Amino acid sequence: MSAALANWLPPWLRHYQRSLLAGDISAGLIVTLLLVPQGLAYALVAGLPPQTGLYASLLPLVLYAFSGRSHAQSVGPMAVTALLVAATLSRLAAAGSDDYLLAAIWLALLSGAMLLLFGLLRLGFLADALSQPVLAGFTSGSALLIVVSQLAPLAGFRASGASLPDIAAAFFRHAAAFNPLAFGVGLGGLLFLVLARRYFARLLLACGFAANVARTLSRTAPMLLVLGGLLLVSQAQWQTLLPVVGVVPGGLPHLQLAALPSTGLAPLVMPAFFIALINYVQSLSVAQMLAAPRRENIDPDRELVALGLCNLGAGLSGGFPVTGGLTRSVVNADAGANTQLASLITAALMVLLLSTSTALLADLPLSLLAATIIASVAVMVDFGALRAAWRTERADAVAFAVTFLLVLALGVDAGIVAGVVMSLSVWLMRSSRPHIAVLGRVPGTEHFRNVTRYHTEPLPGVLLLRVDESLFFGNARHVGDSILQLVAVSDKHSLLLVMSAVNRLDMTALTMLERLDETLAERGVTLHLAEVKGPVLDVCKRSGLAARFGGRLHLSTHIAIQQLCPSLDYHI
Amino acid sequence: MSAALANWLPPWLRHYQRSLLAGDISAGLIVTLLLVPQGLAYALVAGLPPQTGLYASLLPLVLYAFSGRSHAQSVGPMAVTALLVAATLSRLAAAGSDDYLLAAIWLALLSGAMLLLFGLLRLGFLADALSQPVLAGFTSGSALLIVVSQLAPLAGFRASGASLPDIAAAFFRHAAAFNPLAFGVGLGGLLFLVLARRYFARLLLACGFAANVARTLSRTAPMLLVLGGLLLVSQAQWQTLLPVVGVVPGGLPHLQLAALPSTGLAPLVMPAFFIALINYVQSLSVAQMLAAPRRENIDPDRELVALGLCNLGAGLSGGFPVTGGLTRSVVNADAGANTQLASLITAALMVLLLSTSTALLADLPLSLLAATIIASVAVMVDFGALRAAWRTERADAVAFAVTFLLVLALGVDAGIVAGVVMSLSVWLMRSSRPHIAVLGRVPGTEHFRNVTRYHTEPLPGVLLLRVDESLFFGNARHVGDSILQLVAVSDKHSLLLVMSAVNRLDMTALTMLERLDETLAERGVTLHLAEVKGPVLDVCKRSGLAARFGGRLHLSTHIAIQQLCPSLDYHI
Repeated sequence: MSAALANWLPPWLRHYQRSLLAGDISAGLIVTLLLVPQGLAYALVAGLPPQTGLYASLLPLVLYAFSGRSHAQSVGPMAVTALLVAATLSRLAAAGSDDYLLAAIWLALLSGAMLLLFGLLRLGFLADALSQPVLAGFTSGSALLIVVSQLAPLAGFRASGASLPDIAAAFFRHAAAFNPLAFGVGLGGLLFLVLARRYFARLLLACGFAANVARTLSRTAPMLLVLGGLLLVSQAQWQTLLPVVGVVPGGLPHLQLAALPSTGLAPLVMPAFFIALINYVQSLSVAQMLAAPRRENIDPDRELVALGLCNLGAGLSGGFPVTGGLTRSVVNADAGANTQLASLITAALMVLLLSTSTALLADLPLSLLAATIIASVAVMVDFGALRAAWRTERADAVAFAVTFLLVLALGVDAGIVAGVVMSLSVWLMRSSRPHIAVLGRVPGTEHFRNVTRYHTEPLPGVLLLRVDESLFFGNARHVGDSILQLVAVSDKHSLLLVMSAVNRLDMTALTMLERLDETLAERGVTLHLAEVKGPVLDVCKRSGLAARFGGRLHLSTHIAIQQLCPSLDYHI
Repeated sequence: MSAALANWLPPWLRHYQRSLLAGDISAGLIVTLLLVPQGLAYALVAGLPPQTGLYASLLPLVLYAFSGRSHAQSVGPMAVTALLVAATLSRLAAAGSDDYLLAAIWLALLSGAMLLLFGLLRLGFLADALSQPVLAGFTSGSALLIVVSQLAPLAGFRASGASLPDIAAAFFRHAAAFNPLAFGVGLGGLLFLVLARRYFARLLLACGFAANVARTLSRTAPMLLVLGGLLLVSQAQWQTLLPVVGVVPGGLPHLQLAALPSTGLAPLVMPAFFIALINYVQSLSVAQMLAAPRRENIDPDRELVALGLCNLGAGLSGGFPVTGGLTRSVVNADAGANTQLASLITAALMVLLLSTSTALLADLPLSLLAATIIASVAVMVDFGALRAAWRTERADAVAFAVTFLLVLALGVDAGIVAGVVMSLSVWLMRSSRPHIAVLGRVPGTEHFRNVTRYHTEPLPGVLLLRVDESLFFGNARHVGDSILQLVAVSDKHSLLLVMSAVNRLDMTALTMLERLDETLAERGVTLHLAEVKGPVLDVCKRSGLAARFGGRLHLSTHIAIQQLCPSLDYHI
């Protein structure tokens, strides 16, 4: 192998050892058994043909294996992403239309292109745009919405909607189509999955399997249910008595750039951005969680690029947006995945399934798929974070609750926008009211301290203030107003602002300082600055503020006070 | 007057002096002359019947006069708000349908209710959610979009769209309906307005008017144009040859809660939030600008309540969302407004107009209204802020440019979402990588300093780190990763984190600290904390983190080091 080629290969492949193979093969197999029902089910959630879920489970796995760095990350369809796709498309195209499918594919292409671009621009910090309570509220709300949206398919009829009121209204409007047989099968399936979660692993343990093998094998319950359902329907000849998946076209997806939907791409751009954001936050969290015990180093920018390629791959092969799923990746790791070879094996098995066996899936009852979705997302509804936040920091608890309720009331797409705004708001509220101290001189020294905490001497004619926070758009207005109020109640002719705690200054804060200077000048008060830090001084120089202040910029508070209060005693 | 009643009256009314009356009457008159064409024109921008613009210019003025605190704020229809209404509604209802009108009214009611609620919850800080460059980019983009959207009405045909590509496509699709007469009239009007802006005031000055009177009178040019246009059309009998306003129903609006639009309220909630946000930022800026020279004290929370009431009033009287407009409020102040009595006079004149004279407006050419819109918003396209930002802080310049381009490419509603996200992103990017210093002891002292800047002695077995920023969702991930990397390259068995620069800690950062503690324990490293500030310690106690750390929480770095490095020499 040439050195140039070797450099392009991912590290796991360059240093692959045969001892890793058994684990990778077993993980590849187990994940396939989980991925097939998940792919079909999440296509159902997204309102798309079943094969699109399988298409989305193929190329992205291969692309991640060569571009990502997590050893066990399993990229593919995810419940919340599927719901986001459905919510976006329900406003743009009729369910089942060509436009609906094209728009879903373009959501994958656009969000992939964005992720790739953000990665190349090294914008990995974007994962930090959502605070943890907001993300928890969003996840819980989305999971509950998915559970509710699957109640109609569980009962054998169709009723879709983007928000809780929509779904409830659609449910009751179509409830006459209730199918007792489908509901019985679905309920039975749900019961099986609930029991399997509690007892399957213990049963396998009792049969003599090792603990980790038993736990891993127990995760194949959804596939067992799918196989059982197929057998039942074909034996009982129920194909026409309850809604089934129907013909799943076989063969591999064509690699092609899809035609544009008739709406154009403009209405897809913002949804694609938010899908990209949620998928990235989700996938990065999974990668970092898996990396921690192995001391892997996950680079957020590289993961952005990898997830971008995966989504471009999903879109080019006729799938919808994908991300690293928590459940599937944990199963992958538990089942022994040592390297991304496991995902390549899964991809190979998906190729095999698509080439040979999709016809077998036609009889699968939709109510069973609904049961697997409900069982897998119901555990994501988690109020533990809400309780913890309520005890610790009320504002975070409110952010959780508001995001949760907005997702239910308005749908998952509005919920994610609200979530970002909410994260920002809670933070803005906390940092928009920084502490401003009035300082005096500690008698006979060069030290200046808060007059309410220390014994200080007054400074004739000079009001001395210190702002304990960086100045930026979030607090510039409040700081400016507060300073003017402090000046209004004093009778000093000079204001000295101590900038020692100001680490950064943005355009909004610069404008505030300029206006403050003007307003103070009108009122006969001269503004001086002292102890401006290096980076802040650079910004002041570039903007022209430094030139404007000229001799009113002082190196230290002591030097400034010496100049402004010559009458004070400086002989210590 | 009873004392109880007097307390409910606004301050200006309690202390009204007759000397203020002349100014208020003149301002009330002049603003009416500006408001009539603006009301009609912005209704056109919003895609609504002309009378809704007049309805929106009545009750809100009265409500602000009694609830707001700015002496010259003039609340009513605004260009950018009208465009936001149009962008929202174009996705939900057919132009001209009942649903379209009902949805516009509900946008006013919902955004009014939100503003009122935010005000009562004292969320005035929300005005700080948009950084200044982002707001400037948004305003310039919206203004350009409005100018382009009015080119079709200026040329005598209809072509609407939410984004630049949409508008351009619609323009060329309908360009066959080009009406040379309408275009000639519109172009003539535009020329008149441009010339009036440059020379009208000078002309009046030359005629012997005082400078401020001349400046104020020159602002009535749009009304003169409207009157000239009406005269021209009726004399030349052009009513059927070019598009005109048509019958404007007379009489006062009914006060009533409108029926719900058929889409329900859910799709209106997020747009109403962003309209509320933009209107509030806009109106607060105007109020603060007018307040500065008079040393009025504008309370953001009170202005939220006032603007909320104004929008509820607009919705209840059949109008669309309103805000404090810059142009109109400045004209109001320049024309001599001393108190909100000026607005009450304007409202009374609007009542008079609606009761008696709307029939006169029927012949007004739409192309002339388009000309007044273009002339008034074109000056809002301003790249000065972009140039200033580019010199000073590149990230702010990028935020301006991206917001500007997104408004044009995707429309004003997506643009405002992008703007909020952009403000957040620029700030996140700056604060997500805080400075982390490795500390050593200044030999023989109790002081600990950055090892790269000071001469320090090593601490056997202890890695001493100081994070120079509050910990929160925006930097928790990065700080956690960085600390783990610093630990990985050291061979110490203890990590002491100096928390002296951490002013705040949120849930996300708490979780990070817990996970960090777990991960370090797995690697055989014990985590200690020192110099935790009071408020941060409270949060740690409430969350259970303090109990978890127990004896590993130290009052000072010195005490901690004495315990962790007993071998060091402490005899100074």
